[in-house]
Amino acid sequence: MSKRFVVIGGDAAGMSAASKARRTDPDLDIVVFERGRWVSYGACGLPYYVKGAVGEIEDLVAIRPEKFIEEREIDLRTRHEVTEIRPERKTVKVNGNGQEKEVGFDKLLVSVGASPVFPEVPGAELDRVFTLHGLDHGKKIRGFIEEKSPEKAAIVGGGYIGIEMAEALYEWGMDVSIIEGLPRLLTPFHPDVSDVVESHLSERVRVNLHEFVEGIERTGGERLEVSFGDARLESDMVIMAAGVRPNVGLAEEAGIDLGPTGAIATDEYGRTNLPDVFAAGDCAEVTNTVTGEADYVPLALTANRDGRAIGSTAGGDPTELAEIAGTAVLKAFELEVARTGLAVEGDAREAGFDPVSITINAPSRAGYYPDPKRIDVSLVADEESGLLIGGSLVGREGVSKRIDTLATALASSMTVSDLERLDLAYAPPFGPTWDPLLTAAKVLSGKLA
Amino acid sequence: MSKRFVVIGGDAAGMSAASKARRTDPDLDIVVFERGRWVSYGACGLPYYVKGAVGEIEDLVAIRPEKFIEEREIDLRTRHEVTEIRPERKTVKVNGNGQEKEVGFDKLLVSVGASPVFPEVPGAELDRVFTLHGLDHGKKIRGFIEEKSPEKAAIVGGGYIGIEMAEALYEWGMDVSIIEGLPRLLTPFHPDVSDVVESHLSERVRVNLHEFVEGIERTGGERLEVSFGDARLESDMVIMAAGVRPNVGLAEEAGIDLGPTGAIATDEYGRTNLPDVFAAGDCAEVTNTVTGEADYVPLALTANRDGRAIGSTAGGDPTELAEIAGTAVLKAFELEVARTGLAVEGDAREAGFDPVSITINAPSRAGYYPDPKRIDVSLVADEESGLLIGGSLVGREGVSKRIDTLATALASSMTVSDLERLDLAYAPPFGPTWDPLLTAAKVLSGKLA
Repeated sequence: MSKRFVVIGGDAAGMSAASKARRTDPDLDIVVFERGRWVSYGACGLPYYVKGAVGEIEDLVAIRPEKFIEEREIDLRTRHEVTEIRPERKTVKVNGNGQEKEVGFDKLLVSVGASPVFPEVPGAELDRVFTLHGLDHGKKIRGFIEEKSPEKAAIVGGGYIGIEMAEALYEWGMDVSIIEGLPRLLTPFHPDVSDVVESHLSERVRVNLHEFVEGIERTGGERLEVSFGDARLESDMVIMAAGVRPNVGLAEEAGIDLGPTGAIATDEYGRTNLPDVFAAGDCAEVTNTVTGEADYVPLALTANRDGRAIGSTAGGDPTELAEIAGTAVLKAFELEVARTGLAVEGDAREAGFDPVSITINAPSRAGYYPDPKRIDVSLVADEESGLLIGGSLVGREGVSKRIDTLATALASSMTVSDLERLDLAYAPPFGPTWDPLLTAAKVLSGKLA
Repeated sequence: MSKRFVVIGGDAAGMSAASKARRTDPDLDIVVFERGRWVSYGACGLPYYVKGAVGEIEDLVAIRPEKFIEEREIDLRTRHEVTEIRPERKTVKVNGNGQEKEVGFDKLLVSVGASPVFPEVPGAELDRVFTLHGLDHGKKIRGFIEEKSPEKAAIVGGGYIGIEMAEALYEWGMDVSIIEGLPRLLTPFHPDVSDVVESHLSERVRVNLHEFVEGIERTGGERLEVSFGDARLESDMVIMAAGVRPNVGLAEEAGIDLGPTGAIATDEYGRTNLPDVFAAGDCAEVTNTVTGEADYVPLALTANRDGRAIGSTAGGDPTELAEIAGTAVLKAFELEVARTGLAVEGDAREAGFDPVSITINAPSRAGYYPDPKRIDVSLVADEESGLLIGGSLVGREGVSKRIDTLATALASSMTVSDLERLDLAYAPPFGPTWDPLLTAAKVLSGKLA
């Protein structure tokens, strides 16, 4: 009898695992339970769907369910919710099609994702208060916009999603306000980079920092009124974009250990403390490239990659997970903004480093080449070892891929002086002779010496 | 009495060395002899000056001579030609201002650059046959175009300069023909990448491969006639862009050893075989990152960086030169084209590797994001060690910086499997979840396994 690999959750990590397990072991019995109706979708595309840059919500589905079922011979069950994991019996309890049943597994992957953090303020449950996490959320928001033509929007949270949604709603002609509790936007980025983003955003939307939403009320009409500090802001819609937290309830109840970040703890193969039970994606921890410690980085590539590695392992080819530098990029109106590693001195200090950082700016093209843009590069190093430990970049061009050079340097534990010596590409349309990264490394080297 | 550092040649390597030596040792006596009238200029900008995208030739001068003289206290002598190096006396003989004199040195840097290869064909000396190497060449070509409004141009050579000049002359509305002796364009790039460039160029200019120019004649009027194979091509101007060779005459006469590439051999500090005599820039060899062997890579960053390191050393702070991966990028009309390391299987085999290569294509943005462009990624690895040894990329966006990730991977001797595990940035406007580099690494891993 063939072995069975059961996957709970059919998005990035889960479907990557199922697909890779199939390629690794053609005889494996593979079952995926997904409680919703969508699988394998690009949640990162949701702001662009809301914006209208992506036509149909179905465009965000990377691979159709039939393909998994027919071509990859994966027993994919949507609208099936796993309500319990029974590790001692090696089964899961599943509700679907109005029935409850118990299904055995040889190996199990918990890839149940994360949920939006919903600030507990009065009025958060009102109709026109949205989150943006799954495809149905996206459809609901765009449907609302198309139907009601809202004029004013409030966005609670100044992180990736908050900023991408600000751009999306601004494109619809709305008067947009961002309300962020911390003193700056994009806190995992260096403050110098956050400042550039704030100043750019402020030309288009209202940015309220260090402000906590205290309540949301319905006005006389259909509008909402959002209170924070001394302000009362009228708004036709509110987007809650205050980050996500891992879905760990099901795992905890089964006796699966959580790690220091609050997500599911795993070893280098993605194994939990329970035998033959793995976890990956937005519900699980990863190992940070720079610190070597557990970290929580709910990003798409991590989920895809870790799912794929666990699929290999489940199929009989043990494969270690990759370490994660937390490399990320976002488009913020006209800006590209990117980060990797420990990009903020405070975070580096907390992780036990003695951080030194610099920020420089440089042109994105040779000075004489038409239309150069300004790039700001911020680097963080450890004073004692001279190791590069993180970086952030912002600019109108040439940012989204430059961060990958830093991520690669982090993966090989380069010192700032190693970075300074890299043979990077040069041509006048694409940068100055000394790439901004090299210039930043030179300046930081000077400060370390 | 203070020590004297003499520099022969006042462009990238020479002026970088002089400036860095000044910062390192404020008391050093620093003399630079430059035989021409220009110093510290961006030769890489010449095609864009010819194109008209850069207004004045002076815009290409990075730092004015007065600044070196007044602010940096460098005794810069333009129009001074060193005619002899006398190592036993530690002097150089110099002609300038109509006088010849002999100047002593404690340390000497030979940074005399390279000269264009001029194919020895009948008619190559004719008036309307140009090369593009120094600023005066650039002025002459643009002056000619502005005055004579040429309609047809022939470019001999399908490398970096040939292609950049094809774009420049096409912008002036000319009917442009490239004539390349080898069977493909851009021979240091993977053939799959050359093919993409050839097909793109062929939509705008005539590309003649595997053809050698046999002669250039004047027609009855002012036009030239270029013969190759069975063809006779009428042309108003001819650009010779057949590469460069290092200027080594002065060094050879002084007993300085050349290396296997024909350029000046140096050690890890840029020292030649003669005591206290250094060489850097387009006249000198470098050490290749991948092979660890001598290589000839006449590019701007190499010259700047090696000059700077030698300036440090001359100033009393011994600094090793960086190794060079031969990373390069160029704009070819709408395309970005880039390479690093041993990007061609044949070159890798010659260097003693057992190369395996793949080429994949992938979109430059998430599939659902508007207007994705195609990127072709070609990687070369060594079969036995699994080491990445080179790569080439081509596409309409997202190429110029992606190559730097590969260059960084080469600098840390990553395997293909290390590359596959990199935590690169992802957001829908900037790439698919699995970056094209990661996809290429996955495919190459599969071929290596």
